[in-house]
Amino acid sequence: MEPALAPATPLLPAFTHHQKVGFAHCDPAGIVFYPRYFEMVNATVEEWFETSLGFSFAKIHDDMAAAVPTVAINIDFRHPSRLGDVLEFRLHVTRLGRSSIDLQITAVQADDPDGPDRFTMTSTLVFTRKDIAGSAPWPADLRTALQHHINKQDQHDT
Amino acid sequence: MEPALAPATPLLPAFTHHQKVGFAHCDPAGIVFYPRYFEMVNATVEEWFETSLGFSFAKIHDDMAAAVPTVAINIDFRHPSRLGDVLEFRLHVTRLGRSSIDLQITAVQADDPDGPDRFTMTSTLVFTRKDIAGSAPWPADLRTALQHHINKQDQHDT
Amino acid sequence: MEPALAPATPLLPAFTHHQKVGFAHCDPAGIVFYPRYFEMVNATVEEWFETSLGFSFAKIHDDMAAAVPTVAINIDFRHPSRLGDVLEFRLHVTRLGRSSIDLQITAVQADDPDGPDRFTMTSTLVFTRKDIAGSAPWPADLRTALQHHINKQDQHDT
Amino acid sequence: MEPALAPATPLLPAFTHHQKVGFAHCDPAGIVFYPRYFEMVNATVEEWFETSLGFSFAKIHDDMAAAVPTVAINIDFRHPSRLGDVLEFRLHVTRLGRSSIDLQITAVQADDPDGPDRFTMTSTLVFTRKDIAGSAPWPADLRTALQHHINKQDQHDT
Repeated sequence: MEPALAPATPLLPAFTHHQKVGFAHCDPAGIVFYPRYFEMVNATVEEWFETSLGFSFAKIHDDMAAAVPTVAINIDFRHPSRLGDVLEFRLHVTRLGRSSIDLQITAVQADDPDGPDRFTMTSTLVFTRKDIAGSAPWPADLRTALQHHINKQDQHDT
Repeated sequence: MEPALAPATPLLPAFTHHQKVGFAHCDPAGIVFYPRYFEMVNATVEEWFETSLGFSFAKIHDDMAAAVPTVAINIDFRHPSRLGDVLEFRLHVTRLGRSSIDLQITAVQADDPDGPDRFTMTSTLVFTRKDIAGSAPWPADLRTALQHHINKQDQHDT
Repeated sequence: MEPALAPATPLLPAFTHHQKVGFAHCDPAGIVFYPRYFEMVNATVEEWFETSLGFSFAKIHDDMAAAVPTVAINIDFRHPSRLGDVLEFRLHVTRLGRSSIDLQITAVQADDPDGPDRFTMTSTLVFTRKDIAGSAPWPADLRTALQHHINKQDQHDT
Repeated sequence: MEPALAPATPLLPAFTHHQKVGFAHCDPAGIVFYPRYFEMVNATVEEWFETSLGFSFAKIHDDMAAAVPTVAINIDFRHPSRLGDVLEFRLHVTRLGRSSIDLQITAVQADDPDGPDRFTMTSTLVFTRKDIAGSAPWPADLRTALQHHINKQDQHDT
């Protein structure tokens, strides 16, 4: 029996976010310039925090005087994306730590959901507070929201 | 009777496009860094070409071997936008020329449509073709789409 | 006799800054995407504040708890720039107000300084402080640095 | 005796490129927003291709109708960078394949070269041609330039 948070098989998406590839994302080769993918990934993470967890980045930064920086990324770019493509970004939590979280993020063309991944990415985010150096434990309410999301995600997977 | 394309009073929006201010748009002062506004404006123009005119930028660039570069901008930044603001971009055509078009673009907070403009901007775009230098006349079908849009816009205004 | 700060003829550059057009600046048409010009213009303004005036943006933002936002831009894009072009940005002060400053900024190809302007731009920046709304008078030391720069610029022009 | 291209100890930099952290790179937390690091990394790679190898991206894209896309990245962000920091990017080749290359890239503060790495990154780039799908073998002249660079790099290391 495989553990819920370290799956060997592809996960069903727990959170999806659509973004269209615009002129601003594309390079002289006519495909998405890879730093722009990370802007799109960050927008996906922001949307997930706001709509799934109830903690917008505005709330985290302004009200909580905190941040959720990305501290590690591992990404394979598999298939180019072109101007006008509508991408479906899929975010899955693979580990919840005391002050960190691991995410698995992929993107496919929204109208071809079984088509090739544009990229597969894993990343680690940590919770930080402006008044102390280094990472800090997740606040109780945010941790509860994360755990609640993971429970729903796992039900979706099984 | 005021001329339809040079109104003295604020125009009703003919085309609107909502975009949320994300982390990628904001500067160390916590407000939108102005070059990012232009990325958002360009996304608005792209969305307008695609959904209102039926000419996506992918179609224009790839199929028609053409482009619609912005050749002039006049902008006043009136009110800062902050992380998490959902902005309503409003696009109005103010002049259609042989190979150019003038646009008036503003943005307000979507949930406060009568609130202050974040900026007011006028811009000029021209039609260009990859095989010839300088601007080129609008192709007949694109010109028809532009004129049709202006007619609807004017009916909306009156 | 024409006033020094409102010249009818092209000004000699008072401050120049070289930047190379990279992949990140270029669009699918292979030319600079105009929002990227504004990033380059902002880098020019930052470099000018730091090296000519002695006030880096880090100092202004962090130590002085202030900012110098751009509040108006008027720009004509005259000639496209391509991947690999080294551009010379030229900054000239055209007006110093109580809490604002007007700049004239152009760019040419560095190895063709008499060649066509890539764009001609005028902009207005204002001084703001984090503890008060709206603009604030230039602090005495920054105003002195601005006036000193303008004096040198005018000697250069005559 | 350790193999030259898979060192166990930190490498001496074979190619360095300085870039200043500007306003455009920084987020509301006042530190470099990580997608901007990738723009800076790409600028470093471009500068390396042009000045060390003699193959500018303009030459590769326009004259050779080719490209050198990044297909994989592994990065750890170790220490934040702030507005005004001058970063020294260090690029080292760790593997040369038939149609690919592995790079190791780090950045430190230029005036504190023994200070903490801002990030450590490995990436894989492949050579591609516009007229064929997938990767293509390095052209003979570019491969010679790469091998020549690696030879110099290894002499520097020993």
